[in-house]
Amino acid sequence: MRILVANANTTEAITALCAEAARGAAGPGTEIIPATPRFGPEVISSRAENVIAGHALLELLAEHAGQVDGVLLAVSHDTALEAARQLMPCPVVGMTEAACFTACLAGGRFGLVTFGGTETYRERIAQHGLASRLAGLIGIPATPQDAVRDPAGVATRIGGAIAELAGQGADSVVLGGAALAGMAPRLQPEAPVPLLDGMACGVRLLEMLVALRLPKPRLGSFAVPQGRMVGGVSAPLAALLRGG
Amino acid sequence: MRILVANANTTEAITALCAEAARGAAGPGTEIIPATPRFGPEVISSRAENVIAGHALLELLAEHAGQVDGVLLAVSHDTALEAARQLMPCPVVGMTEAACFTACLAGGRFGLVTFGGTETYRERIAQHGLASRLAGLIGIPATPQDAVRDPAGVATRIGGAIAELAGQGADSVVLGGAALAGMAPRLQPEAPVPLLDGMACGVRLLEMLVALRLPKPRLGSFAVPQGRMVGGVSAPLAALLRGG
Amino acid sequence: MRILVANANTTEAITALCAEAARGAAGPGTEIIPATPRFGPEVISSRAENVIAGHALLELLAEHAGQVDGVLLAVSHDTALEAARQLMPCPVVGMTEAACFTACLAGGRFGLVTFGGTETYRERIAQHGLASRLAGLIGIPATPQDAVRDPAGVATRIGGAIAELAGQGADSVVLGGAALAGMAPRLQPEAPVPLLDGMACGVRLLEMLVALRLPKPRLGSFAVPQGRMVGGVSAPLAALLRGG
Amino acid sequence: MRILVANANTTEAITALCAEAARGAAGPGTEIIPATPRFGPEVISSRAENVIAGHALLELLAEHAGQVDGVLLAVSHDTALEAARQLMPCPVVGMTEAACFTACLAGGRFGLVTFGGTETYRERIAQHGLASRLAGLIGIPATPQDAVRDPAGVATRIGGAIAELAGQGADSVVLGGAALAGMAPRLQPEAPVPLLDGMACGVRLLEMLVALRLPKPRLGSFAVPQGRMVGGVSAPLAALLRGG
Amino acid sequence: MRILVANANTTEAITALCAEAARGAAGPGTEIIPATPRFGPEVISSRAENVIAGHALLELLAEHAGQVDGVLLAVSHDTALEAARQLMPCPVVGMTEAACFTACLAGGRFGLVTFGGTETYRERIAQHGLASRLAGLIGIPATPQDAVRDPAGVATRIGGAIAELAGQGADSVVLGGAALAGMAPRLQPEAPVPLLDGMACGVRLLEMLVALRLPKPRLGSFAVPQGRMVGGVSAPLAALLRGG
Amino acid sequence: MRILVANANTTEAITALCAEAARGAAGPGTEIIPATPRFGPEVISSRAENVIAGHALLELLAEHAGQVDGVLLAVSHDTALEAARQLMPCPVVGMTEAACFTACLAGGRFGLVTFGGTETYRERIAQHGLASRLAGLIGIPATPQDAVRDPAGVATRIGGAIAELAGQGADSVVLGGAALAGMAPRLQPEAPVPLLDGMACGVRLLEMLVALRLPKPRLGSFAVPQGRMVGGVSAPLAALLRGG
Repeated sequence: MRILVANANTTEAITALCAEAARGAAGPGTEIIPATPRFGPEVISSRAENVIAGHALLELLAEHAGQVDGVLLAVSHDTALEAARQLMPCPVVGMTEAACFTACLAGGRFGLVTFGGTETYRERIAQHGLASRLAGLIGIPATPQDAVRDPAGVATRIGGAIAELAGQGADSVVLGGAALAGMAPRLQPEAPVPLLDGMACGVRLLEMLVALRLPKPRLGSFAVPQGRMVGGVSAPLAALLRGG
Repeated sequence: MRILVANANTTEAITALCAEAARGAAGPGTEIIPATPRFGPEVISSRAENVIAGHALLELLAEHAGQVDGVLLAVSHDTALEAARQLMPCPVVGMTEAACFTACLAGGRFGLVTFGGTETYRERIAQHGLASRLAGLIGIPATPQDAVRDPAGVATRIGGAIAELAGQGADSVVLGGAALAGMAPRLQPEAPVPLLDGMACGVRLLEMLVALRLPKPRLGSFAVPQGRMVGGVSAPLAALLRGG
Repeated sequence: MRILVANANTTEAITALCAEAARGAAGPGTEIIPATPRFGPEVISSRAENVIAGHALLELLAEHAGQVDGVLLAVSHDTALEAARQLMPCPVVGMTEAACFTACLAGGRFGLVTFGGTETYRERIAQHGLASRLAGLIGIPATPQDAVRDPAGVATRIGGAIAELAGQGADSVVLGGAALAGMAPRLQPEAPVPLLDGMACGVRLLEMLVALRLPKPRLGSFAVPQGRMVGGVSAPLAALLRGG
Repeated sequence: MRILVANANTTEAITALCAEAARGAAGPGTEIIPATPRFGPEVISSRAENVIAGHALLELLAEHAGQVDGVLLAVSHDTALEAARQLMPCPVVGMTEAACFTACLAGGRFGLVTFGGTETYRERIAQHGLASRLAGLIGIPATPQDAVRDPAGVATRIGGAIAELAGQGADSVVLGGAALAGMAPRLQPEAPVPLLDGMACGVRLLEMLVALRLPKPRLGSFAVPQGRMVGGVSAPLAALLRGG
Repeated sequence: MRILVANANTTEAITALCAEAARGAAGPGTEIIPATPRFGPEVISSRAENVIAGHALLELLAEHAGQVDGVLLAVSHDTALEAARQLMPCPVVGMTEAACFTACLAGGRFGLVTFGGTETYRERIAQHGLASRLAGLIGIPATPQDAVRDPAGVATRIGGAIAELAGQGADSVVLGGAALAGMAPRLQPEAPVPLLDGMACGVRLLEMLVALRLPKPRLGSFAVPQGRMVGGVSAPLAALLRGG
Repeated sequence: MRILVANANTTEAITALCAEAARGAAGPGTEIIPATPRFGPEVISSRAENVIAGHALLELLAEHAGQVDGVLLAVSHDTALEAARQLMPCPVVGMTEAACFTACLAGGRFGLVTFGGTETYRERIAQHGLASRLAGLIGIPATPQDAVRDPAGVATRIGGAIAELAGQGADSVVLGGAALAGMAPRLQPEAPVPLLDGMACGVRLLEMLVALRLPKPRLGSFAVPQGRMVGGVSAPLAALLRGG
């Protein structure tokens, strides 16, 4: 099974980090294919960047359409997730979506910890329909760079946030954002509740979806596009939108 | 990997049907172990039966605790799901839960079709936090026996309900109830949207959860019981509740 | 009028405590009949125990079916409430349900204070449809035993929680859990808002429901069971499920 | 116990009808005191009338403050309910509130049938926090006059609506509006689910609240007014608002 | 364009303050007509006063019906808003409604700061359907008199509340209550997010609604009243309710 | 005042149609500047096209940043609205957002009628937080081309949908989609409730927002981007994202 791990920003190091986390969690026989967009934000941290990244991501996916069995979006806001799900002939899962839905299978309510602001996570989780299962969100005032410079200090702060969320009723905590990908093993021993890594959850959910072989819907807003005319996009993306 | 397919009613034929559906969907290396309670309802179709079946199910699970890697509840109302999840040392998934969460990964809103009443499904889906992703519920006024007597007629009615739900905005339809287990392959060709079988979704979700090796929470309402004294239950169940 | 005060755990002292609280609140002519299950948890404090207790409770109720005019569940999570409501030929009310609905008739939002965790209360109140009327939940990190050992200290902590909930917008506070049954008179003088005791509210709500003489629904998921075959339960419970 | 049945419109016949329904349901020892406002709408059927009636109702209540043990608002939109609850030294219940909360104790979801439009009922039920327990609303395109002229025809239409609501998942049906007060006994025999009369439910809920002797909150938005200066109102109402 | 700025309490100084704020924000050609009720509360701070003020307000509006192009309710709880909207032949907007809806056009979630209690604001915002866009509410324990006596001290406390709300995820903050009308310019320079003044937002929204020339609905609960008979109200109000 | 009417698809005729509707509704002194993206879908009718259009739209807006006083998104799904709101130094409003929020100021619940599917509208309205104010959605199975070919026939069908929505409780109906822009005057005479045109509502809301001169938030997820590095976008867009 070939799973595309598609970053939505142009920082190859993040793609590599996410791909590594995915590989560490993948089942035997699952090949992880990392991919990075050709244009767009280096790191998404504004709403406008997220929109641009959505386009860049669809371009990236279109190049791989038909050549992969599933797509895992390695981007914390599940950028362009629904669009990709409609567009691609294979299952698509977002990393935060994956972690949140897995959390629902492991307990009652969940928390989320990330670097920086949390409002866009709150919005995304509400869009996923999971607002009533969210116990709380904590944004650590730190950057990925801080995590590189002072890993122990940052880990301590994340650990504190995890404990606080557990105290607020979270039965598990999602590690939000690509920057936290792969940190679960280091943080888990001290944590009072299970930690959920979006890449690990996502790759396993994709394996599951691929195995189920669900057909695409023929009706509704997730039916594959047909006859759409779109200018200024790559040939593969234009072809997908034209369908046929 | 050993997965217990645990029915919550005492009708072995349903256990067998569900186990077969699970086996058909399971990955290589997954062993399906069917299990039927020693007491309780022949078929659950009242709230009281569901409560009794919950106890019977926990007794059943306790016998297998430590000997299986995951538990799939082969009962449409996800009977005693949260209790089983807290109690057992391994992941536990309910068949309706499994289908509904999978539906969320395959589209926007989903529908559910079943035999008989739908209110208890509506309640269960709301408890799962997915009310905003539910497009509609349709209860076919038929019984499992009707499905045996007149499979084509019943299939036609189910097909009509699926089309109606798709028209109401469902991007996929959950086949609710053990009686519909394994019917997806027959119904899918005519259906405009993907059909979700709880046993198939559940066995694959369990494989995924087992692979993730999430620890049990040490805090909160899903932490394993400790020191609970319970009379009149089997030794294995009493032991699990005592913990230690 | 004969009202069954049915505990769902096997600790007779709790049954007695609850029955006393019910008697203290009952109208003239109301007879309180305490009842304790024959099996199940000594004290419910896990989800699994709550499921087992649900079965034990239905067994207990079945013994009294037709001999009582109403049933008050003396168990904080309104264990098996909906099942009992469907099963029994008379009105059934849960103690937490009773307190929460009464709170709605006495103000805008309410709070709840209890010993231990609060997540299962949050879930139950949401199932009752009252999430938007809940101002907050506070779990005192104490046990019923602490309340016996240091009643003044524990009362002070409960009082603090009540004041905190009032500050969060609660117009009244539910005393959650059988362990707090009967404590309202002692705590009320210092409390800035009315305190609601589930037994007191419940017995009065039952008197009201009995007086209304509402028929049972003949349709839907609360219609009395008919022809249900259930093995391994007592004769009275089996008879109720068979109906006729 | 003295219970004021306070109409909010000036049609004495409606007051009498409601008082009769209340008397028919009241316990022994409960005296029903009917009261009609001195000004305001003859029949409330617009939002503006409802506001005017709110003022008229508070004037009416103030005259009886201290002389009654409870107040039942005999007006379908629970006009000025929260204000009356804050203002009066005794419990206050609205007839629709009473029926809806009773419905919650008798099943899962409920329906409501009334004459005319239903949007304001939908809003009121949502304000009570019960939106998730409402299965549906049906407004019969008829007037109270029609019910007088053609009682059998109107009863047939109401019966049809009740059956339709039961089919939509209502476990009980609220008869909405003073015009339907007292009709439950006639309609119940044909109805598949229990019918709830606001006056009957209300008088019994008040008996229950009076018996509980809950103190008034000393904090928050339901604490009794103190030192409020209000011009152009009657002396009794002004005095209540001044407090002291 | 003539816009009526209608206070719902009888304190002319508040009317003047609100009218001044409205004038400061109004477009060229907009005339602000201040109006104060003839009876009712000096300052609304209880639920009962709000009901009485509703009637007083409708009396006041009726006097101006047909002579103004729009009505801005200069009262923080949007008193009698829906009734006025149905009754008047011109657009009607409430000051808190105006600020909250404007906040939704300027960011994601908003906060609200006011003097005194916040529960009635929470209820009103939920009635407007905006509960999911409310980040938080803070009630400063101060009175309008405090603001006159110690403007700097009170401004500091309001500023602190604004910062706290921004920290909770508010992208803007509504200044709630007539007492804060006109304070935005003074507080804005220090505030990290935009501040919304109900009078400023309201007058501009009214200009917009007047310009759109939407017809009144001919159906439903906002259609103009016809043939309503209401006693004890002024001739203009009675005439409006009679319609024709 | 200069208002940019920004289409998100590349069909100039739609831009012109929308600009004309905006001009027809604009106040004196408001200049409408139509703009069409350089790339992207001819007509958006899939989720993927909406994502691509979001990027194209931001490119388009960036060219006009600093040269316009407000931006009206002439695209039915409010494409990239929140991103544009964060990015641009001036107010930004979406056409569907504008119509829905205006509807809330004109009645209780609203309906929406459009060509084609409605699920993405349902999602967008829920994201705006207005789910509880939505009475219903109807998608006419017609295309914009049908409207050109058979305007009377299509108008009849739209009229039927409007009446149906009014019957479901809608106090007003939003005409959804650019294809219906400008049709309100033709349809209004027959409609029982006011019709809302997104362009008309939007241009007036923008005039209002521009007049209010709200500052941009300095904190949170709508604060202007600073120091964002984005490759492969136009110089103006890159500059806006870099900030400074």
